[in-house]
Amino acid sequence: MNSLGNIIVGQSGGPTAVINSSLAGVLSAGLKLGYDKIYAMQNGIEGLLKGNYFELTDYIKSDSDIELLQRTPSSYLGSCRFKLPEPVLGNEIYTALFDFFKKENITAMFYIGGNDSMDTVNKLTTYAEMIDSTVKFIGVPKTIDNDLVVTDHTPGFGSAAKFVATVTKELVRDSLVYDLPCVTIIEIMGRDAGWLTGASALSKGDDCEGPDMVFLPEVPFDYEYVKNKVAELQKTKKALVIALSEGIRLADGRYVCELGGAGAKDAFGHVMLSAAGQVVANMLKKDLGIKTRAVELNTLQRCASHCASLTDMREAFNVGEAAVKAAYDGLTGKMVLLKRVSDIPYNCVTDTADVKNIANLAKEVKRSMINENNDHVTQEFIDYIQPLIMGEVSQFTVNGLPKHIKRGNN
Amino acid sequence: MNSLGNIIVGQSGGPTAVINSSLAGVLSAGLKLGYDKIYAMQNGIEGLLKGNYFELTDYIKSDSDIELLQRTPSSYLGSCRFKLPEPVLGNEIYTALFDFFKKENITAMFYIGGNDSMDTVNKLTTYAEMIDSTVKFIGVPKTIDNDLVVTDHTPGFGSAAKFVATVTKELVRDSLVYDLPCVTIIEIMGRDAGWLTGASALSKGDDCEGPDMVFLPEVPFDYEYVKNKVAELQKTKKALVIALSEGIRLADGRYVCELGGAGAKDAFGHVMLSAAGQVVANMLKKDLGIKTRAVELNTLQRCASHCASLTDMREAFNVGEAAVKAAYDGLTGKMVLLKRVSDIPYNCVTDTADVKNIANLAKEVKRSMINENNDHVTQEFIDYIQPLIMGEVSQFTVNGLPKHIKRGNN
Repeated sequence: MNSLGNIIVGQSGGPTAVINSSLAGVLSAGLKLGYDKIYAMQNGIEGLLKGNYFELTDYIKSDSDIELLQRTPSSYLGSCRFKLPEPVLGNEIYTALFDFFKKENITAMFYIGGNDSMDTVNKLTTYAEMIDSTVKFIGVPKTIDNDLVVTDHTPGFGSAAKFVATVTKELVRDSLVYDLPCVTIIEIMGRDAGWLTGASALSKGDDCEGPDMVFLPEVPFDYEYVKNKVAELQKTKKALVIALSEGIRLADGRYVCELGGAGAKDAFGHVMLSAAGQVVANMLKKDLGIKTRAVELNTLQRCASHCASLTDMREAFNVGEAAVKAAYDGLTGKMVLLKRVSDIPYNCVTDTADVKNIANLAKEVKRSMINENNDHVTQEFIDYIQPLIMGEVSQFTVNGLPKHIKRGNN
Repeated sequence: MNSLGNIIVGQSGGPTAVINSSLAGVLSAGLKLGYDKIYAMQNGIEGLLKGNYFELTDYIKSDSDIELLQRTPSSYLGSCRFKLPEPVLGNEIYTALFDFFKKENITAMFYIGGNDSMDTVNKLTTYAEMIDSTVKFIGVPKTIDNDLVVTDHTPGFGSAAKFVATVTKELVRDSLVYDLPCVTIIEIMGRDAGWLTGASALSKGDDCEGPDMVFLPEVPFDYEYVKNKVAELQKTKKALVIALSEGIRLADGRYVCELGGAGAKDAFGHVMLSAAGQVVANMLKKDLGIKTRAVELNTLQRCASHCASLTDMREAFNVGEAAVKAAYDGLTGKMVLLKRVSDIPYNCVTDTADVKNIANLAKEVKRSMINENNDHVTQEFIDYIQPLIMGEVSQFTVNGLPKHIKRGNN
């Protein structure tokens, strides 16, 4: 039997709570399918170009390590934001990379990332064709923003959505504690796509009022409408909760977050940019004379692995495994995707699509998933994302805290 | 056998993740000890004065309800921030309250809260003495700030500390993702006491670097020192994490959070006050030319019941039960406290102390728990708080989210 040669895997772009589960999937399938060595680049392509790579099996050595890796937030391999130049024959970056692949007998490379990472996979595939290289390139999707096209959803989104919905539920309860007119504004990530902001609406149920309004970046934000609706709603319900995306824009295209900083400088001469939630909170406070509070969910949305979705973690693992299988089957220039084959019961399988049709495109929330008033999501939206947050991940707890894995410390 | 009469319970001040566990404890002990009716005031004393109260057993009807109540964040009864006037014979507020107690045959009142609530308990006790009333008043401590004197620690603190330590661990992993000099600043609640900020240091272990520096409000914040230390540390470690309290102050007494807003106004003419973390992030960015990010943990610190400490939840329940037992035993004007009777193994029992020695006093972090450089906590601090975050609370999960209880919906 011929050797399958070696493979290499990298992580790129912003992390998610389960990006390491995809890495675990690549490792697991690489071992099962019989590749010789499984290399990992440190800090993505950028690190590899500096010669930073290592054998993953030197650090992830056991089934227990693989389980811990799946429960560890952030990118275990480190990440980068590095855009490859256009592939031109003889370009020194491509030459260096393909020389490396040859030297280390790399037969396939897997890149776990979002839009920009798929651009990298696409360009490497193009260059490989130009030089008749047989190295396979497969993209493994991840992003909390859920904005990749072709795939039903992206690994990482479900866990971020579960965190957003969980804490929205807690913040809604908290908001009702005083018998005073107040508005709590929850600012959620997603500059151009409102998937994650919409996830706040999952909090609504028998035991939770849910957010009273939800504003996505896909539709214009009308402050006058919001102000009037707050005043109207507060006739019967004193404490309101508004979920909004960091990327909401006015009808004239200006970001709401730009409004806070118009000309304002702090004591050190820095121009101050307020977050969108804080801007709206300030405006409502001034115009309605009510107490307001802005809560920014911030980086936790991409790293709160203590609140990960089991469905998401498993799917992230599956796309990692499927990527290796795709290369093993001779495919290249593909991204693994999730295809929903049934809603009841929820079933998603992996498939592949040409990465050139995916890179640099973004998927927004569909019009039919936003209500007519542009101030909430519809049942169609809820039905779409509900399955993605199902299931809890059992943590390995040490000293009262979830255990992670760190290079060289296991 | 004589009737024990009825009791009433209220919640006051800011909520915690387990304040409802104390309410469950009051209810549980009230039923076990044989009180006739267990009333609850809505929105504390302020609500009671408006006539808002109800029978708790009309809503919390089963063991399952009690379990759900313990897992529900925010104050189930609603809260208030209401300071009673000094007790003067014939004062209309006191007259109204004691008339109510008489009318409803209330023999004991339990008030779950922090400093201000203990002031309420103290004043009611004083007034009762003045009019020879036999109604008993017992305080049940809660606060995420851990700043009540006499008690070893306060219920609510352990869960907040567990949340802070858990997300610090995740944020530290996240901070290391790019191969770039950067500083992540985590801003933590506690304006005058640094207990919760110090809890970020619990994240340190085999699998986590922990925060590189921790700044508490008990000691002056020296920005020049911080700037120089960041520059020094970044010679060997690019990504740093600093945990700091919202209440840090300069040596001259000014709050750091005041510095951001000196003269700055936003587009709507509001004076802008930046959070302390954002101010320090801006300064380091400007002075060192590095990437910085401020993460404010915000309201989640007091309501993230999905991350509650089992030890804390049980102790919160116990102090609730102990309060009813204290009144049953004839005590009044007391606060229930936690007394640590052994470190190894960790054992805390309940006790009581005169509430007049507790109200309006605050407990700061001891000097010996802060290191010589004023930039971290000591092992003594860690040893003190480690037991308080132990144990996870199993959630009742429905549709992928923790289930709560809401009045009228169970």
